[in-house]
Amino acid sequence: MKRAVCLLSGGMDSAVTIAIVKKEGYEIYALTFEYEQIHNKEVGCAIRLARDFSVKEHKIFYLDLGRIVKSALTGDDEIPMDRDVEEIKKQKRIPKTYVPARNTIFLSLSLAYAETVDADAIFIGAHAVDYSGYPDCRPEYFKKFQGVANLATKRAVEGKRIEIRTPLINCDKAEIVKKGFELGVDFGHTWSCYKGDKLPCGRCDSCVLRLNGFREAGYNDPLEYEK
Amino acid sequence: MKRAVCLLSGGMDSAVTIAIVKKEGYEIYALTFEYEQIHNKEVGCAIRLARDFSVKEHKIFYLDLGRIVKSALTGDDEIPMDRDVEEIKKQKRIPKTYVPARNTIFLSLSLAYAETVDADAIFIGAHAVDYSGYPDCRPEYFKKFQGVANLATKRAVEGKRIEIRTPLINCDKAEIVKKGFELGVDFGHTWSCYKGDKLPCGRCDSCVLRLNGFREAGYNDPLEYEK
Repeated sequence: MKRAVCLLSGGMDSAVTIAIVKKEGYEIYALTFEYEQIHNKEVGCAIRLARDFSVKEHKIFYLDLGRIVKSALTGDDEIPMDRDVEEIKKQKRIPKTYVPARNTIFLSLSLAYAETVDADAIFIGAHAVDYSGYPDCRPEYFKKFQGVANLATKRAVEGKRIEIRTPLINCDKAEIVKKGFELGVDFGHTWSCYKGDKLPCGRCDSCVLRLNGFREAGYNDPLEYEK
Repeated sequence: MKRAVCLLSGGMDSAVTIAIVKKEGYEIYALTFEYEQIHNKEVGCAIRLARDFSVKEHKIFYLDLGRIVKSALTGDDEIPMDRDVEEIKKQKRIPKTYVPARNTIFLSLSLAYAETVDADAIFIGAHAVDYSGYPDCRPEYFKKFQGVANLATKRAVEGKRIEIRTPLINCDKAEIVKKGFELGVDFGHTWSCYKGDKLPCGRCDSCVLRLNGFREAGYNDPLEYEK
C-alpha cells in the first residue's frame, strides 16, 4: 500500500486534504505541529480528524517556535480583526499573522518523517487563492521545495522521489468547502479561528475567509460562532 | 552592523565556521540544536564557543527528532566503529549515522531565526570532502535550499536575500584544522565523537576523520582520548 505523510493542522484546508489523501488510497501518516500557536485548539481538531480518516499513525510534534520567531499567531502582536474579504485578499503587506518560514519548517520535518516511514508523498493543504498573502503558500515556493526534497534525502540518492503534493493550491475557499462535503469531511471537527477562545470569533481574517467560503459554496458552517 | 545566523553544533567544523563569521565582521546569532543526539555533549561545547566568539545571542532549540526519525545518532542503531579513513571516504552506502533531512530541518529553523533578527546570511559548516556521504552536505543541495530561501520569507518578498553560506564546503579536515588555528579556535572547546562518553572514543567515523585531519595538518588535538 502506498504511503503518504499528510500535514494536518486541524484547519479546514488540512481536513479536506486528508480526505483527498484517503480517497487516493494512501496509508496515512499524519503530522501535526504544536508550535505555541494561540489557536492551539486546532490540535484537538487534528486528533479528531486523524481518527475520522483512520490514519495509520498520527504524530504531534512540539516546536517552541516562539524562541526564534515573532508573529501575531504566537502572541507577539494583535490578530487583525474586522476586515472584509476584499480587504484581506487585496492587502499589499504580509499580515502580522505570518510566521517566518513556517511552511519550510513544517515541510522539512515532514520530509524527515516521510523518509523514516518510507512514504513517497507529502500532502499539504496550502492554497494561493483565498489566502493571506503568505510567501510560502505560492505554487513557485512549493516547486523550489521539491527541488530540495529531490536532493536532501537517502531516498533521493536511491532514486526514489518524495513528492510534495498541494491538491488545493488552485482552489478558492468555496471550492474547498464543496470538495470537503463531497468527501465526507465533518467541518465540525475543524478549527480556523486565529484566536483560541471558546467559540470562533467570526471576525479575524481566518474566520472571515472561512465564513465567506461556506456562504459562496451554499453550505452552513456547522461551528457555532461568538455572538 | 551586518548580522548573520551561525549554526553552531559544537563540533570542529562549526567552531571554525563561527570564527570565519566573526572575522567577516558580522554580529552573530548562534543557533544550536538539542535533538536527543547521543553526543549531546556537543551542546556544552557550543555554549563555550558562543562565549569564545562573543555572539550577540545564542539560542539552543530543542527538537524531539526521535519521534519522527530513526538514526544511529539518536540511539536507534549502532554507531559504526573502527573503520579507517579510506574506508569511511569510499563507503558506497549512506552510513547509519545519517539523520533524515537534518540539514533541511536545521536550515529551515535558521531561516525563521534569520528573518526574525533581520540577518542577511546563514552560515553552516558543512563540507563535502572528508565527510560521511550525507546527501544534505553536497554543494548542489545547498544551492537548492538557497532557491527555497529566495522565495520563502517576507524578506524575500521585499527583495532582501538571506544568503546560505558554506565557507568550508570545499575544505578537507586538515584545511579546516589549519584555518581554525589561524583564526584562534580553541579546539579543546569542540566535541566530535558520536558517542557521548566521558572521553572521545577515537574510533567512531567522526573521531577518525577528526584525528586524521589533525595529523595531516601537523597539529595536536588538544582533546584527551579514551585509551
